[in-house]
Amino acid sequence: LAASAVEMTEPVIVVLSAGDPPPGLSEHVCGAVVRMATAAELPSALGGADVLLAWDFTSDAVAEAWACADRLRWVHTASAGVDRLTFPELLRSEVTLTNSRGIFDAPIAEYVLGLVIAFAKDFAGTWRLQQSRRWQHRETERVAGSVAVVVGSGPIGRAIGATLAGVGMRVQLTGRTEKTGDPDFGTVYGAEAVPELLPQADYVVLAAPLTEQTRGMIDARTLAVMKPTTRLINVGRGPLVVTDDLISALQAGQLAGAALDVFETEPLPAESCLWELPQVVVSPHMSADTVGWHTELVELFADNLDRYRTSRPLRNVVDKTCGYVRAGGGS
Amino acid sequence: LAASAVEMTEPVIVVLSAGDPPPGLSEHVCGAVVRMATAAELPSALGGADVLLAWDFTSDAVAEAWACADRLRWVHTASAGVDRLTFPELLRSEVTLTNSRGIFDAPIAEYVLGLVIAFAKDFAGTWRLQQSRRWQHRETERVAGSVAVVVGSGPIGRAIGATLAGVGMRVQLTGRTEKTGDPDFGTVYGAEAVPELLPQADYVVLAAPLTEQTRGMIDARTLAVMKPTTRLINVGRGPLVVTDDLISALQAGQLAGAALDVFETEPLPAESCLWELPQVVVSPHMSADTVGWHTELVELFADNLDRYRTSRPLRNVVDKTCGYVRAGGGS
Repeated sequence: LAASAVEMTEPVIVVLSAGDPPPGLSEHVCGAVVRMATAAELPSALGGADVLLAWDFTSDAVAEAWACADRLRWVHTASAGVDRLTFPELLRSEVTLTNSRGIFDAPIAEYVLGLVIAFAKDFAGTWRLQQSRRWQHRETERVAGSVAVVVGSGPIGRAIGATLAGVGMRVQLTGRTEKTGDPDFGTVYGAEAVPELLPQADYVVLAAPLTEQTRGMIDARTLAVMKPTTRLINVGRGPLVVTDDLISALQAGQLAGAALDVFETEPLPAESCLWELPQVVVSPHMSADTVGWHTELVELFADNLDRYRTSRPLRNVVDKTCGYVRAGGGS
Repeated sequence: LAASAVEMTEPVIVVLSAGDPPPGLSEHVCGAVVRMATAAELPSALGGADVLLAWDFTSDAVAEAWACADRLRWVHTASAGVDRLTFPELLRSEVTLTNSRGIFDAPIAEYVLGLVIAFAKDFAGTWRLQQSRRWQHRETERVAGSVAVVVGSGPIGRAIGATLAGVGMRVQLTGRTEKTGDPDFGTVYGAEAVPELLPQADYVVLAAPLTEQTRGMIDARTLAVMKPTTRLINVGRGPLVVTDDLISALQAGQLAGAALDVFETEPLPAESCLWELPQVVVSPHMSADTVGWHTELVELFADNLDRYRTSRPLRNVVDKTCGYVRAGGGS
């Protein structure tokens, strides 16, 4: 009887995954019932489940299967962005939403710094010339002293800003609302300041969450105020940028280049002209994903699961009113 | 008579240049006689000259024309390396040799950091996949925590080391002889320690002067002790590496890649297989050359010329016994 009572309190965990199960997860879930589910299997798997781990965070499967979530109390996503999960039914519900904030900061910052230097030193031109065995000396740009406007003042934006400042760039960080007295950046500018900051930027780095306020923020209007020498780097979410406007601006020489790791549609369709615009770098949503990242993601979920089972506060609880984890919102 | 006496003390300056004259030089040489000369014209230009500015520092023209230098007192090179100028006749002579130490440090350090991140994040793979419009997610490497052995403890090596350490890499700097208590690096290892350091290196960065001690230091023997995951970056001088040994090691998978900005023969001949080895990045000796570098080089020469004309100590005097500027050897 006692054993049975314990069993009844053990959570039923659904893992939404498009492929392999999360590595090492089984070591952390002893006693719990774990149901692996693809997007197609999610509706039937959700019935009676307490916890959903969105290991595959790239589909709209959760929104589509939501009606079957009859007992769900907690959704955890193996991503920093929660835009696939902030649909009205989940936002209105009592279900707690947590994300994987903290895993991606430093890897993305390294990646962005690499893209900046690759632009400044024309690595793309070097690779192109190498293919035709052409020795063609060029003068390149200094990185130190150039100006970066980093959009997004969460941990990822802050890590990017600190890393770029570390090589001597002048960094202006923007968030939702202006904050002064930031220990690292002095003033963090508000969203309303972005149009005034963009004309000074040599690099515009997008690391903001996708919310109704940030969707489409880089469009014909904001692109028009950038310098023709500006490069845009998007490691946030594809819909931060109006792709057609970006393509037009690149073709018109309104800006000098773009490095895009995220897209309105992923994978980027083979017919997109972004693949072959000479000033564009296309990478497959990988800026955060370093060897071992799956293990770190599982460990973060396991720690939260331990907190869930012992009724302690979860880490990385998403504030459903703004669509991201507020500073201090979980340790 | 007085005017004539002044004229007689004005120096005759020969500028060895393969193309355009140094920008703005004329503003700094008022009163002096300036003779522009190509490599072929150098022998006739050197007769009666006091000063030689080796603006073109890539040829052996100075060694070949040396017999015609009947009054030369000072040679300045628009480069950091002086290997084209350390031929026995000049070394034995009373002629002072100065270089352009200090102009190249920070640009080269940025360039090397970019190459490191490009390797870690597989930018070459990204460009290759983009050309065939293929969306192929990969996990990449962290830069922080990886180990760099930087060969060369002059200002360029030190700038590289500091920049790589700034992104969290573990840096081991090596020079000619071991020095402890370095304010930035703790211990600077001696040349004899290199074979012991190489097996730990994720990146081996060559930024040493080309001397009899360093020539060919990366050969079959030293390549054999590197890890198969090691990448070699050469921004120093081509002959630091035995090219054929490097090619063999790359083809055998003894190391993971190489980024080469300098070569035993420059320009790299079109038939070299380095152009198309998949793990190799070939760039045309440009790591130091940022927009404005010519102006900085002229200003450094002009400052030294002013010192020469007023009999003050020159900056960047090369110690002819070791082949580079010793720390403290000029301001």
